[in-house]
Amino acid sequence: MSSNTNARQSWKVPASIISKRTSNPIRAIVDHIKVKPNANKSMISLALGDPTLFGNFKIHQTCTDAVAKQLNSYKSNGYPPSTGYLHARQAVADKFTLPAAPIVAQDVIITSGCSGALDMCIGVLCNEGDNILLPRPGFSLYQTLADSKGVEVRYYDLLPENNWEMDLKQLESLIDDRTATVVMNNPSNPCGSVFRKQHLLDFLAVCERNHLPVIADEIYCDLVFSGNEFFPLASLTTTVPVLAVGGLAKKYLVPGWRVGWIFIHDRNNIFNAEVREGLNSLSQLILGSNSLVQAALPDILHKTDPAFYDETRIQLEANAKLSTDILSKVPGLKVIVPQGAMYVMISIDVAQFKDIANDIIFTEKLLGEESVMCLPGSVFQCPNFIRIVFTSPPEVLQEAYTRMAEFCARHHV
Amino acid sequence: MSSNTNARQSWKVPASIISKRTSNPIRAIVDHIKVKPNANKSMISLALGDPTLFGNFKIHQTCTDAVAKQLNSYKSNGYPPSTGYLHARQAVADKFTLPAAPIVAQDVIITSGCSGALDMCIGVLCNEGDNILLPRPGFSLYQTLADSKGVEVRYYDLLPENNWEMDLKQLESLIDDRTATVVMNNPSNPCGSVFRKQHLLDFLAVCERNHLPVIADEIYCDLVFSGNEFFPLASLTTTVPVLAVGGLAKKYLVPGWRVGWIFIHDRNNIFNAEVREGLNSLSQLILGSNSLVQAALPDILHKTDPAFYDETRIQLEANAKLSTDILSKVPGLKVIVPQGAMYVMISIDVAQFKDIANDIIFTEKLLGEESVMCLPGSVFQCPNFIRIVFTSPPEVLQEAYTRMAEFCARHHV
Ligand SMILES: Cc1ncc(COP(=O)(O)O)c(C=O)c1O
Ligand SMILES: Cc1ncc(COP(=O)(O)O)c(C=O)c1O
Repeated sequence: MSSNTNARQSWKVPASIISKRTSNPIRAIVDHIKVKPNANKSMISLALGDPTLFGNFKIHQTCTDAVAKQLNSYKSNGYPPSTGYLHARQAVADKFTLPAAPIVAQDVIITSGCSGALDMCIGVLCNEGDNILLPRPGFSLYQTLADSKGVEVRYYDLLPENNWEMDLKQLESLIDDRTATVVMNNPSNPCGSVFRKQHLLDFLAVCERNHLPVIADEIYCDLVFSGNEFFPLASLTTTVPVLAVGGLAKKYLVPGWRVGWIFIHDRNNIFNAEVREGLNSLSQLILGSNSLVQAALPDILHKTDPAFYDETRIQLEANAKLSTDILSKVPGLKVIVPQGAMYVMISIDVAQFKDIANDIIFTEKLLGEESVMCLPGSVFQCPNFIRIVFTSPPEVLQEAYTRMAEFCARHHV
Repeated sequence: MSSNTNARQSWKVPASIISKRTSNPIRAIVDHIKVKPNANKSMISLALGDPTLFGNFKIHQTCTDAVAKQLNSYKSNGYPPSTGYLHARQAVADKFTLPAAPIVAQDVIITSGCSGALDMCIGVLCNEGDNILLPRPGFSLYQTLADSKGVEVRYYDLLPENNWEMDLKQLESLIDDRTATVVMNNPSNPCGSVFRKQHLLDFLAVCERNHLPVIADEIYCDLVFSGNEFFPLASLTTTVPVLAVGGLAKKYLVPGWRVGWIFIHDRNNIFNAEVREGLNSLSQLILGSNSLVQAALPDILHKTDPAFYDETRIQLEANAKLSTDILSKVPGLKVIVPQGAMYVMISIDVAQFKDIANDIIFTEKLLGEESVMCLPGSVFQCPNFIRIVFTSPPEVLQEAYTRMAEFCARHHV
């Protein structure tokens, strides 16, 4: 009956190649854990990087009020420009500009979470068939985005014995003329590390001599513990072009609000030639993030008492210390002491356990026997580590770690 | 000094091919309009499809309260699942399920605006090198998304003399074995048309015999004027698989909130094979839309008095009638009477004007002389039409149309 002889011949509707190569390593591994938690013990999850889960890290009233104000004004329900309201971009620029890394409103793009910022930065710098340098261990979305775009992933190593500093020699050996960019994450998820100034300068020297633009994921900026200091990458160079990304998710404690940003640190007009316009173009595909939160950014960023964020940091630091104190005494585990963010990586010496061959089995058995969930390092390309998120209240962490200690003792050789 | 002989040799940082082929036809044309509005006349824009601009279409207090409730609960600040909160998906399913097109929560994906829904639907069905059928005239984002993904665009015509019905013969002639899907938009932007049931059945017959899955953009659902009826496409077929998209932007009057959705109408398990999983995968790239609004969806969709939306529709219908009544009396213009949505397309008989060669010149001169802005049909692939958005208050429309009538009289042969 077809009047078109070229017609499609059947109802087979395949999913696109792009959707098939878009996969989340966390889900790929975690969904295969078929073990059920121990029904006799309450479930404790130390797996999710969401500080809002337990009610102990709550946003400040100022932020709530700021959004309520927009809501009640009925003035912020319409379409913002695709790169964000100008006054929102201005507020972000005012907050984050530095003498050594000045930005103005036009250098800021408001995005749909930091994830949206990463999607756009990788999307504007990389072509299919290019390669991108990613940290190992590192936040799994980097790989998901690169795979999705057909960009070859090359991992550079972070060295646990060196406070997770980058192996810059190995990093440099990965670069060739199809290397489009390098993603640097500081403070780090999953490592909880904070890079020293000199280390960042050494990294920049590598980028400099290889003409490699950088995507600096600094969403955990300022979440650093005593004795450490956070240096925005862009403030340490006048020549290497940097796209820095961040957002409200972590320090500002509202990951669900989905507001992030890109800072275009354009040195010597390198990005101006094409990249800035490319980012503008990409911003038009889904038209950015929620207007109410965007419009509230000036108040959120400038009216909240800074002491509030100090308080968050102090609480996190106390949790980090608690984690280190307890877990570093457990035979078979080795804690790499966290310096910032909300994560600690713990190395598992499998030789010390009778029946735990790797991090995935450790995670499974811990869940099955103790109802404690953490992520195996394998999801971050880092086998025989586990990652713990220490945003739970101290008493919950205490209970979880007690169970982990018992678990390790039971399985020790 | 380089220790890597494969290094990149210069600071040339090009933007990606994808970002270069991502362009917005509206901006491409409108940004070239260099004419300034007439400084002696107040500016009236009839160009933007944003019903919130003038304060005459305001969301209902229920919606504001619903979001405020979430805000004050501090319970909806965390990460929702990438496909949306289950209770939000449930609320949407409950609202839109129909006996003839049943959906449950699992068939709903919450997205970053209807734009995000379209991005995912086109992204999951189309590969680079495939082709996609798009309406002409049609919403320009379809083309932007297809171009961005390297999908060849083939336009099927909507016939103004036929209430903008699809030219189904021509549509069918475009289909070949690389045609991945067809986008259907009802009610239509920019046409303001609403398809008859029989026309939709005829369209489905074409899809059926060519095994062509459909993306049905029904974001203007229910915004139809007396004498017309809206039929969800999926309710008229039991065999053609349909991805229907919608959102809060239009009927619910909050485009800036960036919440949309996809309905997976999977007939005979055609999408289940791969597409459903593909949509899940794509949802993980940027992690969806604002948690506060998502969590407010049950209240927004189920607690607002339906009379409120009738009121919106009645106001729009009055504006449509006003537009038709005045503009159809203007020599040189021909109004295609709108049946729904918030748009009217007006054909310009250039032969009747001395110095107006096309729709772009019409738009430019109208702006320069009368400070009235509307979009040239060219941005919708439809030369010698202009599109008017009739969401302004009646007195503003009246003033704008009076100026347009004077303008047309002045330029008439
Ligand atoms: C290093 C890093 N970058 C980016 C993100 C994503 O942030 P957002 O929730 O704003 O998309 C995360 C979230 O966990 C992260 O850990
Ligand atoms: C036909 C059509 N589909 C989709 C959209 C996009 O909707 P949203 O603002 O929810 O992304 C629009 C916006 O104008 C539209 O006219």
